[in-house]
Amino acid sequence: MAKKAIVLFSGGLDSTTCLYWALAQGYTCETLTIAYGQKHEREVHAAREIAQRLGVKQHFVTLNLPWLASSSLVNKEQQIPEHDLNEITSGKIPSTYVPGRNLMFLSVAASLLDAVGADAIVAGPNAIDFSGYPDCTPNFFKAAGQAINLGTEHGVTQGVEVLAPLMDLTKTDIVKLGAKLGVPFELTWSCYNGGEKPCGKCDSCKLRARGFAEAGVKDGAVEK
Amino acid sequence: MAKKAIVLFSGGLDSTTCLYWALAQGYTCETLTIAYGQKHEREVHAAREIAQRLGVKQHFVTLNLPWLASSSLVNKEQQIPEHDLNEITSGKIPSTYVPGRNLMFLSVAASLLDAVGADAIVAGPNAIDFSGYPDCTPNFFKAAGQAINLGTEHGVTQGVEVLAPLMDLTKTDIVKLGAKLGVPFELTWSCYNGGEKPCGKCDSCKLRARGFAEAGVKDGAVEK
Repeated sequence: MAKKAIVLFSGGLDSTTCLYWALAQGYTCETLTIAYGQKHEREVHAAREIAQRLGVKQHFVTLNLPWLASSSLVNKEQQIPEHDLNEITSGKIPSTYVPGRNLMFLSVAASLLDAVGADAIVAGPNAIDFSGYPDCTPNFFKAAGQAINLGTEHGVTQGVEVLAPLMDLTKTDIVKLGAKLGVPFELTWSCYNGGEKPCGKCDSCKLRARGFAEAGVKDGAVEK
Repeated sequence: MAKKAIVLFSGGLDSTTCLYWALAQGYTCETLTIAYGQKHEREVHAAREIAQRLGVKQHFVTLNLPWLASSSLVNKEQQIPEHDLNEITSGKIPSTYVPGRNLMFLSVAASLLDAVGADAIVAGPNAIDFSGYPDCTPNFFKAAGQAINLGTEHGVTQGVEVLAPLMDLTKTDIVKLGAKLGVPFELTWSCYNGGEKPCGKCDSCKLRARGFAEAGVKDGAVEK
């Protein structure tokens, strides 16, 4: 029987590539999409459309945690910062950091995994072309995987894989992988500002633009 | 300046003892109480009353995760099981297990800690007189603490303590500690069935009753 994976799926470039990767690896996938008040909640709609097109089972969860407004990704009174590409990858934690987000997302995924009896969690963190968040590093993901294996029923009885296939890839590599896997780039949403079109100025837009440019691939989401 | 702790606080005997312990240790405490559809949601009211009486800042969160209905602690179609005391402590995972609960609770606490700038998380798991849940073991808590220290801003910049002061105590020891600290036992709620009075038949009631009996302390919550 095919192994089952819970894919943390925001509808962005990275997690969509993860979903296509997991399907290509032969996993039966269920997606988990979490709304937490992010300005770019339209990524949730992107997630819905992409998962529907693939016919995979979807789970949507809303986390209503007032203190997340400490992040400029959530707080409408705070501007999303505009950094140079050099600043973005300097390792400094920017104001868009959402406190404890990835540990919460992984733990909600672990809960779902335990309830439906899945074998793996797939997530899209990336430690190369990223915004300096502490919860996107290989060491953090390894520690979170250990906690999941020790603190869930499936972890202690049969083991759980926590997979981060994009961890060591550049954004350019991710675009190339996505192109190879047939990712519908035009449906994905990366911009931190939830406008009509990607702003082109936030960290996420800049990293994405460089990735597509260096990969020599057309970004259908920007150019449509 | 006093160190600040986020106390995971259900309003039960163990977490109330933890809260009093943390205050006695000199921590400025903020409580975090999480409703997740538990049948005994009246414990949330117990938590509110106890924290108000102490004048500590309280946070209440609701997790709306449909798949938690796989647990008899949540699913109204499933009976809470009634085990002998020997069965309870046999290590078998019972139907009251809530998938991934403690990792989710710790991760929400870590997010709050990061947002408000606290130094420690205090939780009340106990690996002696407990229901055999995988997420109440010392190894799990240690791994979760590592993940929190690697995956949060406060973890990577100044370190976070994850404290489980009851981990190695028997329920009898916990009652004795609570009595010494002045815990208002009559306000705490432990019963898994959320009735008018504790049922006396669920795992939680049985462990609690034995603890009070062996400690020679009167349980005001049962006898009121």
